[in-house]
Amino acid sequence: MNSENFTLSERIVSTSYIRQGSQARRSHEQLIRHLLEQGKCPEEGWSESTIELFLHELAVMDSNNFLGNCGVGEREGRVVSSLVARRHYRLIHGIGRSGDIAAIQPKAAGSSLLNKLTNSVVLDILKRTGVRSVVSCFVVPMATGMSLTLCFLTLRHRRPKAQYIIWPRIDQKSCFKAMITAGFEPVVVENILEGDELRTDLEAVEHKIKDLGAESILCVHSTTSCFAPRVPDRLEELASLCAKYNIPHIVNNAYGVQSSKCMHLIEQGARVGRIDAFVQSLDKNFMVPVGGAIIAGFDEAFIQEISKMYPGRASASPSLDVLITLLSLGASGYKKLLSERKEIYFFLAQELKSLASAHGERLLHTPHNPISLAMSLDGLQADSDKAVTQLGSMLFTRQVSGARVVPLGKEQTISGHTFHGFMSHSEIYPCPYLNAASAVGITQEDVRLCIKRLDKCLKTLRKELNVAKSSSPVRANELRFQGTCSFTSLVLFPLL
Amino acid sequence: MNSENFTLSERIVSTSYIRQGSQARRSHEQLIRHLLEQGKCPEEGWSESTIELFLHELAVMDSNNFLGNCGVGEREGRVVSSLVARRHYRLIHGIGRSGDIAAIQPKAAGSSLLNKLTNSVVLDILKRTGVRSVVSCFVVPMATGMSLTLCFLTLRHRRPKAQYIIWPRIDQKSCFKAMITAGFEPVVVENILEGDELRTDLEAVEHKIKDLGAESILCVHSTTSCFAPRVPDRLEELASLCAKYNIPHIVNNAYGVQSSKCMHLIEQGARVGRIDAFVQSLDKNFMVPVGGAIIAGFDEAFIQEISKMYPGRASASPSLDVLITLLSLGASGYKKLLSERKEIYFFLAQELKSLASAHGERLLHTPHNPISLAMSLDGLQADSDKAVTQLGSMLFTRQVSGARVVPLGKEQTISGHTFHGFMSHSEIYPCPYLNAASAVGITQEDVRLCIKRLDKCLKTLRKELNVAKSSSPVRANELRFQGTCSFTSLVLFPLL
Amino acid sequence: MNSENFTLSERIVSTSYIRQGSQARRSHEQLIRHLLEQGKCPEEGWSESTIELFLHELAVMDSNNFLGNCGVGEREGRVVSSLVARRHYRLIHGIGRSGDIAAIQPKAAGSSLLNKLTNSVVLDILKRTGVRSVVSCFVVPMATGMSLTLCFLTLRHRRPKAQYIIWPRIDQKSCFKAMITAGFEPVVVENILEGDELRTDLEAVEHKIKDLGAESILCVHSTTSCFAPRVPDRLEELASLCAKYNIPHIVNNAYGVQSSKCMHLIEQGARVGRIDAFVQSLDKNFMVPVGGAIIAGFDEAFIQEISKMYPGRASASPSLDVLITLLSLGASGYKKLLSERKEIYFFLAQELKSLASAHGERLLHTPHNPISLAMSLDGLQADSDKAVTQLGSMLFTRQVSGARVVPLGKEQTISGHTFHGFMSHSEIYPCPYLNAASAVGITQEDVRLCIKRLDKCLKTLRKELNVAKSSSPVRANELRFQGTCSFTSLVLFPLL
Amino acid sequence: MNSENFTLSERIVSTSYIRQGSQARRSHEQLIRHLLEQGKCPEEGWSESTIELFLHELAVMDSNNFLGNCGVGEREGRVVSSLVARRHYRLIHGIGRSGDIAAIQPKAAGSSLLNKLTNSVVLDILKRTGVRSVVSCFVVPMATGMSLTLCFLTLRHRRPKAQYIIWPRIDQKSCFKAMITAGFEPVVVENILEGDELRTDLEAVEHKIKDLGAESILCVHSTTSCFAPRVPDRLEELASLCAKYNIPHIVNNAYGVQSSKCMHLIEQGARVGRIDAFVQSLDKNFMVPVGGAIIAGFDEAFIQEISKMYPGRASASPSLDVLITLLSLGASGYKKLLSERKEIYFFLAQELKSLASAHGERLLHTPHNPISLAMSLDGLQADSDKAVTQLGSMLFTRQVSGARVVPLGKEQTISGHTFHGFMSHSEIYPCPYLNAASAVGITQEDVRLCIKRLDKCLKTLRKELNVAKSSSPVRANELRFQGTCSFTSLVLFPLL
Repeated sequence: MNSENFTLSERIVSTSYIRQGSQARRSHEQLIRHLLEQGKCPEEGWSESTIELFLHELAVMDSNNFLGNCGVGEREGRVVSSLVARRHYRLIHGIGRSGDIAAIQPKAAGSSLLNKLTNSVVLDILKRTGVRSVVSCFVVPMATGMSLTLCFLTLRHRRPKAQYIIWPRIDQKSCFKAMITAGFEPVVVENILEGDELRTDLEAVEHKIKDLGAESILCVHSTTSCFAPRVPDRLEELASLCAKYNIPHIVNNAYGVQSSKCMHLIEQGARVGRIDAFVQSLDKNFMVPVGGAIIAGFDEAFIQEISKMYPGRASASPSLDVLITLLSLGASGYKKLLSERKEIYFFLAQELKSLASAHGERLLHTPHNPISLAMSLDGLQADSDKAVTQLGSMLFTRQVSGARVVPLGKEQTISGHTFHGFMSHSEIYPCPYLNAASAVGITQEDVRLCIKRLDKCLKTLRKELNVAKSSSPVRANELRFQGTCSFTSLVLFPLL
Repeated sequence: MNSENFTLSERIVSTSYIRQGSQARRSHEQLIRHLLEQGKCPEEGWSESTIELFLHELAVMDSNNFLGNCGVGEREGRVVSSLVARRHYRLIHGIGRSGDIAAIQPKAAGSSLLNKLTNSVVLDILKRTGVRSVVSCFVVPMATGMSLTLCFLTLRHRRPKAQYIIWPRIDQKSCFKAMITAGFEPVVVENILEGDELRTDLEAVEHKIKDLGAESILCVHSTTSCFAPRVPDRLEELASLCAKYNIPHIVNNAYGVQSSKCMHLIEQGARVGRIDAFVQSLDKNFMVPVGGAIIAGFDEAFIQEISKMYPGRASASPSLDVLITLLSLGASGYKKLLSERKEIYFFLAQELKSLASAHGERLLHTPHNPISLAMSLDGLQADSDKAVTQLGSMLFTRQVSGARVVPLGKEQTISGHTFHGFMSHSEIYPCPYLNAASAVGITQEDVRLCIKRLDKCLKTLRKELNVAKSSSPVRANELRFQGTCSFTSLVLFPLL
Repeated sequence: MNSENFTLSERIVSTSYIRQGSQARRSHEQLIRHLLEQGKCPEEGWSESTIELFLHELAVMDSNNFLGNCGVGEREGRVVSSLVARRHYRLIHGIGRSGDIAAIQPKAAGSSLLNKLTNSVVLDILKRTGVRSVVSCFVVPMATGMSLTLCFLTLRHRRPKAQYIIWPRIDQKSCFKAMITAGFEPVVVENILEGDELRTDLEAVEHKIKDLGAESILCVHSTTSCFAPRVPDRLEELASLCAKYNIPHIVNNAYGVQSSKCMHLIEQGARVGRIDAFVQSLDKNFMVPVGGAIIAGFDEAFIQEISKMYPGRASASPSLDVLITLLSLGASGYKKLLSERKEIYFFLAQELKSLASAHGERLLHTPHNPISLAMSLDGLQADSDKAVTQLGSMLFTRQVSGARVVPLGKEQTISGHTFHGFMSHSEIYPCPYLNAASAVGITQEDVRLCIKRLDKCLKTLRKELNVAKSSSPVRANELRFQGTCSFTSLVLFPLL
Repeated sequence: MNSENFTLSERIVSTSYIRQGSQARRSHEQLIRHLLEQGKCPEEGWSESTIELFLHELAVMDSNNFLGNCGVGEREGRVVSSLVARRHYRLIHGIGRSGDIAAIQPKAAGSSLLNKLTNSVVLDILKRTGVRSVVSCFVVPMATGMSLTLCFLTLRHRRPKAQYIIWPRIDQKSCFKAMITAGFEPVVVENILEGDELRTDLEAVEHKIKDLGAESILCVHSTTSCFAPRVPDRLEELASLCAKYNIPHIVNNAYGVQSSKCMHLIEQGARVGRIDAFVQSLDKNFMVPVGGAIIAGFDEAFIQEISKMYPGRASASPSLDVLITLLSLGASGYKKLLSERKEIYFFLAQELKSLASAHGERLLHTPHNPISLAMSLDGLQADSDKAVTQLGSMLFTRQVSGARVVPLGKEQTISGHTFHGFMSHSEIYPCPYLNAASAVGITQEDVRLCIKRLDKCLKTLRKELNVAKSSSPVRANELRFQGTCSFTSLVLFPLL
């Protein structure tokens, strides 16, 4: 309420109480002022009450909520379902304009403010989590993969002759498709096995650059966060190569914001060499629903160029989710989540190690991967081809989600390219294994339950295998029907 | 509640009342059954109560809501803010998988069901609104422009040598950028002036095809819904040309679902010639927040190919919005909205006509445009260059949104291409004008207020112009400062 | 947002757009100003957006929402469930103080404002609906019956020797219990049959007064809204009697606000005689959830005395509901609902009349009852004692709610007093009948469905009765088991 | 969804995923089954998802949500505002029937179930918190005071000749008014000073009983939870006296559920003597909004008699709040809250003790009061009459809520009875003091802030007093105007 309304209220309820109420309102306004002034994530999280008040304030600034508005255009922010209006806090106009997803909308001052503030708060968080020299970023309501595609499409205009993208192999479909969709030819560089870890083959990368010629290469497309035993790419060295050969460098930092190691790699890469943009998922890093990504970089002009490539207005939903989330956590709340994640990573490693040795397996030694862990499954593979995938299906049925089993020797063809040893990031990985990750938001209880159920599954599987071995071959064939999942789901499962 | 729980309830509350309650529940289940069975938009709308019950049911089927789930993956649908969880009805996993935006997610049976049903219900609506032979479609959480880009990127793989897109001119930035972003060269075909209308120059199109060679042309990119005095492209003839020369044809049907004429054009085009895909906006046709589009077509395989080009999972938010909206309206409710829109189109035309003649202007005769109307502004242009744009800014300030003024002779360069007479879809349009549209959701009150305010603005402007004319030239120059909007907003305004 | 924050916003989003947004905000503030200034129901309803903004503003004024509050009392408005906090808009402190339910709470300026405004808006509505000279009222979160009890308890302190309450009979349990609970002895005055109508026996009332002595009588307790064929009491005459003998007069106006006739009776009664307080239900008159009542009167001091009798703080929930409802309807919206109700009353009367004559029954002639109607059931009674109650149970099973069947000769003892012909408000009513009412919020569809189902039930029943008659007496006895409701529910049903 | 709908879903999304979803649904149903079967508070809290699913299920069982319902009654659960419908989860019919607030409603099976389950869950909690032999209880949407009134009114019918209520003094207005409102004469028994504590004067009670004659006494009205230095009444002894003289005994256990001591007293009292009913607040014990109470007892018939005294249906809002809260906490969550409260009680005591000694005051020794503490304010009183009340107002302004200052020698007349030394529960208490309480939901941060601010206030006040003393008497008089609160609020404050 404005001061006039407070004064009127004093006539109804006693002056001193209303004044206290009005002071209390001011403390909410104060928080909003800081946000508007500094464009940074507040140190302490806001209460739901402040957040909703703020969103209400934004909404009344959009023309669809003007009390006296009349609309005769083709896009007036009309909403017919009140369920829908309500769940978007009546912020209907989305973000951006036809020319630029980061632009301001005349019809929607509130939504425009939301968009600008979100990008600004997110930039602050990228700085705080380790990429201190990041200069610009924006939230885009697309998957990480599609956002990478947008980056590649933008680079095309700068490098019209380029047709290749150099890509240290990572077995995740959308990364690969991001390049295919943009119309480029991925040049897959196999990883090197160092101990248990799979790491970037820098020599092979440089070799390819020389081979193909720098001008025919659109960019190097590297990856930080990934499933063990692969580890983040050697970003510093790749960035140096890119600088040396004057080749753009796009980093897929999918869920790397949650790890200080991944963020440090990016900061270092940009410092010593060249990184043009790095892309990260909203949902995997900020515990919001699937659907958004952040495109960030060190050169404001280039990041703006990307934002101007998106034709049309876009959904404000992912921006709204991440803004609500960061305001409610505050920078300190988010940091706390990250440090809990780190602690649980060590707890998970320890528990997996014990479990592995109890079953005659071992925890693979992958110290460079700060999030994902892998435990060998040699014993299962020895007995039966199907046992490894069956373990996956058993875990799925027992509500262990996210544990991923990787059998040996899978082949998969994606858009014409055949990957040998698919899922393992390598044609030559020596053993099958199971992945588990400590991602932001995980709890000790998650780990405890997972270990308990995994232990049970391994025991059950062992028993079944022994029975199968000691009986007729027919029974062994039937093994796969003993789970509650059909074979179809087994096939689908590993590609989660 | 299941039957066991109903039986238990009978011990607490009398049997006959509980039985009636359980019967009542069944009537909600019945509605859900019809939806699942037929995959069509229900004839009558559902109550909010049924919709929310249904969404709750979907949510409990997703793994993030399993009571006993433990997650050790990097993407577990965890949400830290309860405001965020609630506004998405706890449906967190988005839609699709890394390989295909229309695919089913093992972790999220409920979200997968939502995605499939939405696409199915939307397909039903496309059929009911006129494109009876449409075969397949899917909702994608991207702007219409970006969705067109995705179509073009998909076609690239079918036509690797093509570099041109033939495009009958329409002055809307995102349509143009959709082609640029995809990496193609738009071949702009100027429109022909027929009476007041701007229509497709079919000869010029065929000429260009012959000129460039069919195999170098990615596709023809045509448009239905547009601002008068441009009218929908001659789809039948274009489709026939495409068939004749074996060139793909992509239709931008941005807000055409709401018009039986636009839908009829597409149906006819596909019947007599070739249309590969047609793309429409969710927000403009279904009164939901900005952010989604529908990609539809007549060949299931091609539509699937497009859906497989989106790398990564995507936001379910636009799908959820349109599903809620269509379930709450029902097919009959949606039809009612469309017929109201049509009636108000005639009302708006009549009112504009009267107003125009009162001010010495006229309503342009554009019978082929079923949504947008234009009224000449010859009088203003005669007096001053600035007067036309000032009218736009005056309307904006008076909360008339969507009324668009188009001055003569504007030039605009977009991605290297210069448009003469920008905003008017033509280099030669003879008069400046003002647009108003009757789009779905418009009310009679909108029209009445708009006409009233427009009348006032025109009178005020006339008076100011007269004063300016009769006084020193300095005053005339200052004219633009008399409105409350700065010049910056005047410049921004026409590009709305 | 305050002006400082708007200024900061102008640095982020363009000045002119933010200014327009800030103007838009002012129009919401303007509505709130009118409410605070005048304390009246706004003529036009508010949008949900304004209502929620207002409630948010109230909530931040309560100490439980102060950002820096620390609480060391036993009642601090703490809420542990966010579902609960949210559904009360974080207004937790209830209304009133230990000494007075209408008092202001130091800890809760916002809730206090809510309470005061609700009472003020409701008072305005009572005036507008016909009791123009009402002086004071307050909302109390108790049933109408319990609110009457509170009035009687208050009167006790004014008339310590009184032990009787004179009460023209109305067969509704809670009215009777209201007197019993307050510790008084109801003096039941039987109604007179005039035509089909049951009306107040004024002579009997005066006789009782003389008989018992005015000072031994606490008050006359009269009723407006009631089930036909009873009609509203002769308030003018009763009020005159009360004035003459100096006896307080409390009117049960349960659902009478919706009828201009009932309100007129109260206005007239107060004008020509004496009415101390009149009590009405919130849910029945304002379409809100069950649980609140309004106690109103013509002497501010007496109404305050009642409000000071409620020991303790009380739920703000009914106040909040009625305030939201009246703000969203506006005075004009509420009036519209009332005039629709009236129209449907005539429609219902007509339909019932036709139906009655088709079944050899008749619509009872009760022109003084503006809400409830009755149709005779002579035919059913003639055939079987059970048939009338079975009709009730059949209607219940067929989801016709609120239709009430009244058999002949029922006896019921409540708190020691035996009512002959219970439910019919009379010991001598000549025929059984069925009630239907046109209450606020009823739709034409309700009437149509009711008539259709009632017609079917009567036909089915007639057929069953004919079969029963023509077969053995055993079958006739079993009749009652043919419905889906058990006998228990039959017995319960008539007391709805 | 029912099994048929799950089967249909399997055709859309793969069988194994749907089956897992359906199993997940079953785990929610399982929780509901336990609740229905046992009627007890679940040990572990439910997720919001389960709670909302359950409330949805209840709502669809109420006739106002039947899809095919037609209503022709005067109370059909119609709701015109969707904001209102939503906030009540569409449970509109309230609880109870005209004859009995605990009765089942034919029109509202879901609301009836809610009501029964709430009473059952609350009974379970009363047992678990210490009154193991409690037999029956019900939630009533009225203040504790009004609920006590209802108990007294019920007793009147059992003891028609009684006119007195014996009441060991407690200075809380609503307790006193509860008796006045019911129409009885409170017989105030002054407390005895034992050390710092004020305790029940048993001899005086027995003396009064003999004096007045047992049959003229309606009941003894005792109190557990109260502000220190008063302590809970000697319930065992009072209960024995009541048994001995055959006098009913009603206990005001306002916020005593949170203290095992208070609950133990009631259990013991009922075991060794007579307790007819004990009444407790919902908001103060269960962290829900103000507005409800629980009436409980050891004789089912008597508790039912009370529930049958409430004339009319009542608001379900408090029942809904407490049910949601207890389901979301679970018994273990509630117990955890209580043990935290107890810990913070000791922390608060320690902190107050330190603070007191630093200011030359002392923490009063009141070991029998488990919730409230008192610190002497001798120093302030010595200097100025106003200083004590000014401290109260200073704390209020500094957002310390609930800290209550008690000056010496206040007089207050309530309903004709004059209390000397009002607020201190005694005519003779030797020193002024300040109260602070550790009530359920309090945090360590509350205590820390309170102590810090209190310290500051005491220092400021001391300084002002010294200045005042050393200057002219005029300045001393003006002291009260130096705070931001007006004198009016000072007067209001102490009666909080």
